[in-house]
Amino acid sequence: MVISESSPSAYRVVGTRPIRPDGLDKVTGRALYGADLKLDGLVHGVVLRSPHVHARIKSIDTSAAEKAPGVLAVMTGADMPVAAASGAGAWSSNRVMAHDKVLFKGHPVAAVAATDRNAGYEALKLIKVEYEPLEPVLSIKDALAPDAVLVHDDMVGNHLGESVKNTNIAAVIRHELGDPTGAMGRASLVVEREVEMATVHQGYIEPQTGAARWDEDGRVTVWTSTQGMFGVRDQMASILQLTETDVHVIPMEIGGGFGGKLNVYLEPIAAILSKKCGRPVKAYMNRVDVFEATGPAAAATIKIKLGVDDDGIIIAAEADLKYEAGAYPGSPVAAGAVCCFASYDLDNVRITGYDILVTKPKTSAYRAPGSTHVAYGVESVIDEICEKRGYDPVEFRLKNASREGKRRADGPIWGPIGITQVLEESRDSAHWTSSIGEADSPGKKRGRGMAVGFWRNGGRRSVVTLNLNADGIVSLIEGSVDIGGSRASIAMQAAEVLCIPMEDIRPSIASTNSVGYTDNTGGSRTTYATGMASYRAAELMIEELKVRVSKIWDINASEVVFDNGTFQAMQDAELQSMSMTFKELAGRIDGTGGPVSVTSTVDIPEAGGAFGAHLVDLEVDLETGKTDVLRYTVVQDVGGAIHPSYAEGQLQGGAVQGIGWALNEEYFLTGEGRMANSSFLDYRMPTTLDLPEIETILVEVPNPIHPFGVRGAGEVSIAPPLGAIANALHDALGIRFPQAPMKPGRILESLGVLKDGVQ
Amino acid sequence: MVISESSPSAYRVVGTRPIRPDGLDKVTGRALYGADLKLDGLVHGVVLRSPHVHARIKSIDTSAAEKAPGVLAVMTGADMPVAAASGAGAWSSNRVMAHDKVLFKGHPVAAVAATDRNAGYEALKLIKVEYEPLEPVLSIKDALAPDAVLVHDDMVGNHLGESVKNTNIAAVIRHELGDPTGAMGRASLVVEREVEMATVHQGYIEPQTGAARWDEDGRVTVWTSTQGMFGVRDQMASILQLTETDVHVIPMEIGGGFGGKLNVYLEPIAAILSKKCGRPVKAYMNRVDVFEATGPAAAATIKIKLGVDDDGIIIAAEADLKYEAGAYPGSPVAAGAVCCFASYDLDNVRITGYDILVTKPKTSAYRAPGSTHVAYGVESVIDEICEKRGYDPVEFRLKNASREGKRRADGPIWGPIGITQVLEESRDSAHWTSSIGEADSPGKKRGRGMAVGFWRNGGRRSVVTLNLNADGIVSLIEGSVDIGGSRASIAMQAAEVLCIPMEDIRPSIASTNSVGYTDNTGGSRTTYATGMASYRAAELMIEELKVRVSKIWDINASEVVFDNGTFQAMQDAELQSMSMTFKELAGRIDGTGGPVSVTSTVDIPEAGGAFGAHLVDLEVDLETGKTDVLRYTVVQDVGGAIHPSYAEGQLQGGAVQGIGWALNEEYFLTGEGRMANSSFLDYRMPTTLDLPEIETILVEVPNPIHPFGVRGAGEVSIAPPLGAIANALHDALGIRFPQAPMKPGRILESLGVLKDGVQ
Repeated sequence: MVISESSPSAYRVVGTRPIRPDGLDKVTGRALYGADLKLDGLVHGVVLRSPHVHARIKSIDTSAAEKAPGVLAVMTGADMPVAAASGAGAWSSNRVMAHDKVLFKGHPVAAVAATDRNAGYEALKLIKVEYEPLEPVLSIKDALAPDAVLVHDDMVGNHLGESVKNTNIAAVIRHELGDPTGAMGRASLVVEREVEMATVHQGYIEPQTGAARWDEDGRVTVWTSTQGMFGVRDQMASILQLTETDVHVIPMEIGGGFGGKLNVYLEPIAAILSKKCGRPVKAYMNRVDVFEATGPAAAATIKIKLGVDDDGIIIAAEADLKYEAGAYPGSPVAAGAVCCFASYDLDNVRITGYDILVTKPKTSAYRAPGSTHVAYGVESVIDEICEKRGYDPVEFRLKNASREGKRRADGPIWGPIGITQVLEESRDSAHWTSSIGEADSPGKKRGRGMAVGFWRNGGRRSVVTLNLNADGIVSLIEGSVDIGGSRASIAMQAAEVLCIPMEDIRPSIASTNSVGYTDNTGGSRTTYATGMASYRAAELMIEELKVRVSKIWDINASEVVFDNGTFQAMQDAELQSMSMTFKELAGRIDGTGGPVSVTSTVDIPEAGGAFGAHLVDLEVDLETGKTDVLRYTVVQDVGGAIHPSYAEGQLQGGAVQGIGWALNEEYFLTGEGRMANSSFLDYRMPTTLDLPEIETILVEVPNPIHPFGVRGAGEVSIAPPLGAIANALHDALGIRFPQAPMKPGRILESLGVLKDGVQ
Repeated sequence: MVISESSPSAYRVVGTRPIRPDGLDKVTGRALYGADLKLDGLVHGVVLRSPHVHARIKSIDTSAAEKAPGVLAVMTGADMPVAAASGAGAWSSNRVMAHDKVLFKGHPVAAVAATDRNAGYEALKLIKVEYEPLEPVLSIKDALAPDAVLVHDDMVGNHLGESVKNTNIAAVIRHELGDPTGAMGRASLVVEREVEMATVHQGYIEPQTGAARWDEDGRVTVWTSTQGMFGVRDQMASILQLTETDVHVIPMEIGGGFGGKLNVYLEPIAAILSKKCGRPVKAYMNRVDVFEATGPAAAATIKIKLGVDDDGIIIAAEADLKYEAGAYPGSPVAAGAVCCFASYDLDNVRITGYDILVTKPKTSAYRAPGSTHVAYGVESVIDEICEKRGYDPVEFRLKNASREGKRRADGPIWGPIGITQVLEESRDSAHWTSSIGEADSPGKKRGRGMAVGFWRNGGRRSVVTLNLNADGIVSLIEGSVDIGGSRASIAMQAAEVLCIPMEDIRPSIASTNSVGYTDNTGGSRTTYATGMASYRAAELMIEELKVRVSKIWDINASEVVFDNGTFQAMQDAELQSMSMTFKELAGRIDGTGGPVSVTSTVDIPEAGGAFGAHLVDLEVDLETGKTDVLRYTVVQDVGGAIHPSYAEGQLQGGAVQGIGWALNEEYFLTGEGRMANSSFLDYRMPTTLDLPEIETILVEVPNPIHPFGVRGAGEVSIAPPLGAIANALHDALGIRFPQAPMKPGRILESLGVLKDGVQ
C-alpha cells in the first residue's frame, strides 16, 4: 500500500499528521537543551585536549592550574577509577579521558572546574603536559601495513575466533552461505570493485553537553542531551564504578543525534570534577571539539565481487569490508556485514569484515551505521553489471530481490519484506517514468541513477505508563528520548486504541528514576518498540476500563465491549441501551477502584527490516566539477506510517545526509592527521539551497509483529544515496567514482581537467 | 503491643529507623523549595492586599502601575474568569483575589508582574483602590448578633437541610443517637461548660509560594510547595476554568504544611500574570502575608453537656459547636462533630454544629482540624465530673471508653480501636505512676492533668510504580508529597515485601503528568494509603518475578515461592536445590520478558481512626502567671509504626503545637480587626527552650485493613493538649480555664492578681 492523503484508512489517528506535542516549546525557545541547565552553585567544566594525534603522556603537572583564580578542581586520567585497567576494561574510560596515551587529536587529557568558563580556559593553559609524540595511524592502509605502528600495544584481536596479538585489526568476522568460490567460477560475468569512503560526521546542530552533581552519599545526578538516558546510566556506572541506580540521568531535549549521542563524552568528566569540588559541574563542547573528539562515522574500504549467470541471476557474491573503528575497537562492521547483500536473494555468499584501529576519534553510530558503505559498493557493482549486460537497473534488482522465506547471509530467514514493492513503486514512479531532460548548456551533463539500501530495525525494551485523568485526557510516561517526533508517534498509537485524539494524550519523557528501563532512541526502534508499549498500555487501559464500567453498570466485565470509542453492554437486548464514551467514563472513574494507571513493559524482537530505493537526477558542471541534484525521490517501506510527515521527514533527512556524504563531506586531514575543516563553514553539509525538494513515496508492507505494521523508518534512507549518485554520475559522464566524496576536484580529475590529483 | 527497641519483630524493615532518603538534600540545602525556583525569563509577582477588614471595592485604577518601570503586567479580580459568578461558584476565586468586596485584612485586590520584586512593590504603590469600608464581623458573637452585618449578602445557608438567606451561618449540621434529652433528665450529675478558642496559625517555616507559566496553547505549568499537587491541579482548573490536564503541577519540597498548604493562594495569581505578560511568574509571601492572608485554624466556641449516672456511666451527651469559617464557608465543624464524643461509648447523643462566617481569612485545615476544639471542651467537662465525683480520671475514661462494635454518633460502627489500650498504657506509664513532686518555691504551684483525643484517618486514592533495576535496586514513583518522612515510610513498606533494605528503594515524587492521581498528603492518609499502594506494588513485583524466575528455571510460576528474600522452587525434591536471591534475579531479568515495572492503584476506606492520651505535669508561677511544662507524655495508638522515629516525631510535633495553642498562641486583633502580632517574634510559638523532651509511647492496635496495621499517626496528637493542660492547671490552681490561650494574663486574672481583665 502506498500512502496518499486521499487513501481511506482503517484508522482514526494513525496515518494523520497532528502537531507535535513538543512543537510549541521548541519554536518558542522554551525547550531546555543540555547547555540550558541552570542549578544553584553550578560551575563550569572545561577540558584540555591533546594537540597530538598519537603520543605517550610522560607527565601532567596540574599544580599551577589548581592555584589559578576561580579554579575549584582539576582532574586527569589518574582520577578515572578504571583508567589503569588493562585492555578492554579501560577503553571507555580512556576514550573519555586519556590515561597513558593520547590516540587522537582532541583526546581529553585533563579538565578543570571553575567558577566561570574563561577562568577555566585560563587555567587549562597552566597545565603542563609532557608528550612523547608517536607515529600516527591515519588510514586503513597505514593500519594494515606490515610494519604498522600499533594503536594499542596490548590489544588482542579476535580474528575469526582466533586471538591475535600485535595487530591493529580488532576483529575479523565472516558470514558465509553456500559455495561462493565455486559459484563465482561458474559465473558468466564477474565484476569486482572497491570503493573508499572518508570519515564524515553526523553534524547534529547541538554540541555535546554533560552536567553532573556528585552527592555526598556517592550518588550522581546527570543532566545531558542523549539518545538514551538508560544507556548513559549504564556507561556512567561502568566508567565511574558505581552501581547503576546510584546514577540518576535526567535527559534534556536533544538537538539531533543520528547515532552520535549514544556514547558519553563529558558526563564522566563533569561527575568527577563535581566529586572533587562538591559543586554541580556543567561542560559543553564547541564545534571544533565535536568534530575532533566525538564519534564520526567510520571511513571504510569496501570490496565487492558479484558473479552473474547468463539469465541475469546473481549466483555468487563476495565482500571484503574494512571499517575504521577509530582509536578504540567497535566500527559498524558487524552491521555492514548484515546489510551488505540484504537486498538480494543470494545462495552463495561470503562476507568478511575487519574492525580496524586508527589514531582518529572512536567512531560512533551514524544513521544505519555501516549500511551506507556497503550500499555504495554493492550498488555501484550492480549498476556496472546492468551497464555491461544492458539490463534495466530496476528490473535486474527486482529479479534478484530478497524474498520472504529465504535466508540472509548472516543467518535469519526473511519474514514479509518490502524490497519488491519498493522497486515496483520506484519503477512506476513519476520520477522514474519522467524524462530527465537536456542540460541547458553544453558545459553541463545530466545523469540519472538509482540504488537500494537496507536497515534492520531494533526491538528490545520499552516501558510506557498511562494515567487517565477525570477530563478524559491521558498522561503518557515514556523512557524514549524524542529526537524526531516520537512523542507524537508513540502517543498516536495509544490514542488509536483509546479512540481519542492524539491531543488528548500528553506525553512526558521521564528520568531513569521515573520510568522503567527503556533502550536508546536509535536503531529505528522507537516508534516500533516504545510504540508497541504504548499500544499495549492502551489495551490494558481499555481492559481496566471495562472492569470499571461493569462496576458502574453492575454487570460482568466480560459483557462489556469497547467499540468505536464507546463502552457498551454486549448482545443482551436489555443491556444494549447502556453505553458510555471514553470521556464520560473517565469522569466517572472515582469510586470504581482507584485511579486508572497502567504500565506496559515490552521486550520485542527486531521488526524484520526495511528497504528503500533512491532515484536521483543530477547535473555536472564540466568546468567546475560541481554536481547539482536536480530531482531526488526516496521510495521506502515504512511498514505502517504512524505520522506520515515524520516518516517522510526521516526519509528526506537521511537522503540529504547521504547526499552530503556523497558530494561534499569528509574530514580533511593534514599530513599530521589533524582535521583542517572543523567548522560548519569548511565542513560543507548540504543546505536547503543546495537541494531540490526531496520527494518521498511511503510504501507500507506491514511488519506482522506490530499491530499497525510499523517498521523502523529512520535510518534506511542514508544507505542508498552514495550508490545512487555514483550511478547517476556514471550515467552523466560515463565514469565510475569509487571514492567518496565525489567532490568537484575528483570529478575534474576524472574528466582530465585536473592533472595532479586532488586535495 | 507497645513498641520498644528491644521487642522482637516479625519484620525486617518495618519498625526500624533508617535515614530518610531526602535527608542529605535537606541538610545540605540542596532541596529545592518553592521560592528556590529558577527559570529562564522568570519574573516576580507581587500582590496588593487590602488594608481593610471589610470593605466594598468601588474602583481600582491600575493605569499608573502599568506604566511603571519594570512592570510587565497588572491584574485585578476582573481578570479572574469566575470572579463575578454568583455564590459558591466564585468563592475560591474571590478568596484568591477579591472581586467586589474585601473580606479580610490582607485580601488580595491586585497584583503586578515585574522584572524585579522591588519594581513590583513600587508599582503596587501606584495602584489606586477606592474602598467603601464596611463594619467588620470579628467573632462568632458578632456574626450571630440579630443585627449582624452580613459577610456575604447573597449566601444561602444550609441549616439542617433548610435554605436560609440573610445569615452568617453557612451551615448547621447535626448528629443524634438515642434520646439525649430524656437521658440527660435521668442523669444524677450534669455538667455543662463552654470553652472558647482563639484563631491560631499552623506556623509552618516556609511561607506560601506559587509560580506558573501560561503557555501559548493555554496550558499552565505550576511549581509550588503544596500538600497535594493533584489538589492544586483541581483547584487551578476550577478557578482558571481549564480542563484539569491542561494544568501541570510540579511539587517543590515543602517546608511544613499541617493542613495550611492544601489551598492555592498565589498560584492562580501567578498564572494569570503569566498569561498577561507571557513570562513565567513566581510569587511568594512574607510572614505577615502568611499570618494575615492564609488559612489559620478556626476560632471556636464549644459547649459541652454531659450527664452521668450513679455508676459513673455517661448516659447523655450534648454538644453545640460553633466554628469560625473565616470569610468563606468551610470551617472544620464537620470533623469536629465526628471527633467530639468519639472517645466515649455513648447511647444518647446530640451534636449540633455551626459553620459561621466572619471577616477573617478563610480558615484552613490545621492538624486534626476541629478535633482540638472539641477535645478541649469534652475533656474539661470529663475532668470536672471526675473532680465532682472523686473518680480517677483514667479509670473513668476507661469505663466509658468507645469499643468495637458500638456506633459513633455520626453513624459508623467501630472496628478494632485502641482507646482502651491507650488508657491502660497511660495508667501504667512511668509518667502517670510517678510523683509530680513539690514546686521548689512557694510562689509556684504544680499540677497534673490528662486528656484524650481522636482523629479519623483518611484512605482514598494513591498510585505507586516500582521499577526494578539490574542492580537489584528499585525505583519507586509516588504522588504523595513528603512532609514528615513519608518517602521513608512508603519505601519501607515495599522494602519489607521485597525483603531488601530500605536504602535499596529510591523514591521519587512525580508531577501530576508523571504519576496517577494521588490524594493530598493530609488527613493522616499518606503512610496508610500510599503505603498500601507501595505494599501492593511490591506484591505485584514479587508475582511478576516469580514468572520471570520460572522462565529461567523452565518451570511453572506457580511452583515458585518467595521466602525470606529468596525465590525457590517448591516442594519437588529435584527442584528444591534451585534458589535465587532478589538481587541475583534482578541481574538476570533481561531476556525474561522486558523490564519489570509494576503499578498499584488503590482507593481504600478510612483506617478506622486512632486515639491518643496526653499526660502533663506543669508548674505555674503565681507572680507572673507563666506556666512551665515540666513533663509531657504522649500515648497514642499508631496501629503499626513503620518508622517509629517518624511516628514519634508526629506525636511530639502535634503535642508541641497543642501546647503552644494552649498557653501562648492567638491572633491578637486590634479593635478594627487587624492582627497586631503577625511575626514569629510576637506570635509566640513554643521553642525547644520552652519545653521538656516530649515522651512518647507508641501503642500498636493493628488496623485490620492494612497489612502492617498502619493507622494515621500524624494528627491525633494535637487534639488532647488543651484539655490536658486546662485540667493540669485546675489541678495546680483549683481554677478552670475555659478560654485558650491560657496565657499569663488570664491566669493572673483568675488568681485575682490582675483586676481589669486581660488583653
